[in-house]
Amino acid sequence: MNAAPVSRRARPAKAPLSRDVIIETGLRILDADGLAALTMRRVAQELDTGAASLYVYIANRDDLMAAMLDHVLGTIPEPEGGPWRERLTALVDDSVAAMSKHEGLALVALGAIPTDPNALRLIDRMLALFAEGGLDERTNSWAVDLLYLYITASAAEQSAYNTRQSDEATHVAAAQRAFADLPADRYPMIAAMREQLLTGDGDARDTWALRVLIEGILATPAG
Amino acid sequence: MNAAPVSRRARPAKAPLSRDVIIETGLRILDADGLAALTMRRVAQELDTGAASLYVYIANRDDLMAAMLDHVLGTIPEPEGGPWRERLTALVDDSVAAMSKHEGLALVALGAIPTDPNALRLIDRMLALFAEGGLDERTNSWAVDLLYLYITASAAEQSAYNTRQSDEATHVAAAQRAFADLPADRYPMIAAMREQLLTGDGDARDTWALRVLIEGILATPAG
Repeated sequence: MNAAPVSRRARPAKAPLSRDVIIETGLRILDADGLAALTMRRVAQELDTGAASLYVYIANRDDLMAAMLDHVLGTIPEPEGGPWRERLTALVDDSVAAMSKHEGLALVALGAIPTDPNALRLIDRMLALFAEGGLDERTNSWAVDLLYLYITASAAEQSAYNTRQSDEATHVAAAQRAFADLPADRYPMIAAMREQLLTGDGDARDTWALRVLIEGILATPAG
Repeated sequence: MNAAPVSRRARPAKAPLSRDVIIETGLRILDADGLAALTMRRVAQELDTGAASLYVYIANRDDLMAAMLDHVLGTIPEPEGGPWRERLTALVDDSVAAMSKHEGLALVALGAIPTDPNALRLIDRMLALFAEGGLDERTNSWAVDLLYLYITASAAEQSAYNTRQSDEATHVAAAQRAFADLPADRYPMIAAMREQLLTGDGDARDTWALRVLIEGILATPAG
């Protein structure tokens, strides 16, 4: 008995469509080819389907970006051990790192009250850590608001550097040249502080900025 | 003797092109029709000229956006009178207000070391105010860096609200509904603090956030 014929046109079965598959494909396109390449059409192409099939799972490109952001926020590890300040610092650092790794995602978070599940988990964890630190509820709620703004802004800044593909040293050198030419009568402080202004690497400044925020929050009960 | 004939086709003389005229036209288009409408072609149309004529004054759309941002930063009033903290607070508030008034301009500032003249004047004034407050040079330079990030992030957030054309109350109400449905086992803090989380209007939160930053900066000398 002969074996059943196998069509030469047989193709590997398509992965079944789902919201997760679409989100992961979107992230792959974003990371490989940048924000401008991320269209519903391109996602559909990659998944070997029509754009119309995607709309069952994702409303539009804005919805896709929001879903990609929340997927990324779901990868932030739970900080373990140590005093609450250390855990909060780790959580903020990890959040900035996760958000800034993908072009444009941080901007999705900027200016919207978070309502997606993993963003809310992040908020919930920060609230719990500040509560452990003794913050009253009102101050805590404003504090987490401010910290979330800081996380998104830092990530957007970091992501902008990455996208420009100039490393920090190049960027700083360009700024140093610009500062060197400034007239001291119009820019007395910058002229006087030229050397000092761009000292300290990004990490040292970030660590300091987060300490400033936490110190300031602890010292400033809300209205 | 007859009067010299006047051509019916006579048109008012075109305003002479200049960088300033192009910048002001760009702002007018942005405010009337939004970020997507702002193209070099549209600016050229408004000025009754060809896009090629603009490139003598402005390199491209990114350059135009940067120039528009710096123009807007040039409108921030010099704070006068009062202790340094009050003047710094007024300067930050006015900067956020100026930047957030025009869609997308704050994002231009996010992630770039400022090198345009009015942005640098703003930096210089903040450095002078912190110096008056007794900050050492290193802390001062990091402090102004953080404050500039805060200004751009707040303005971007405010601008995003404005663009979405949902007022704050509507936005907060939508978030309240989202929060009300959250399961307490996964979101224990949000569930417990539901009432508290969205209290306080935006202005009260902004005033508090800036106090947090200034308190934190004064209490945290840089490395």
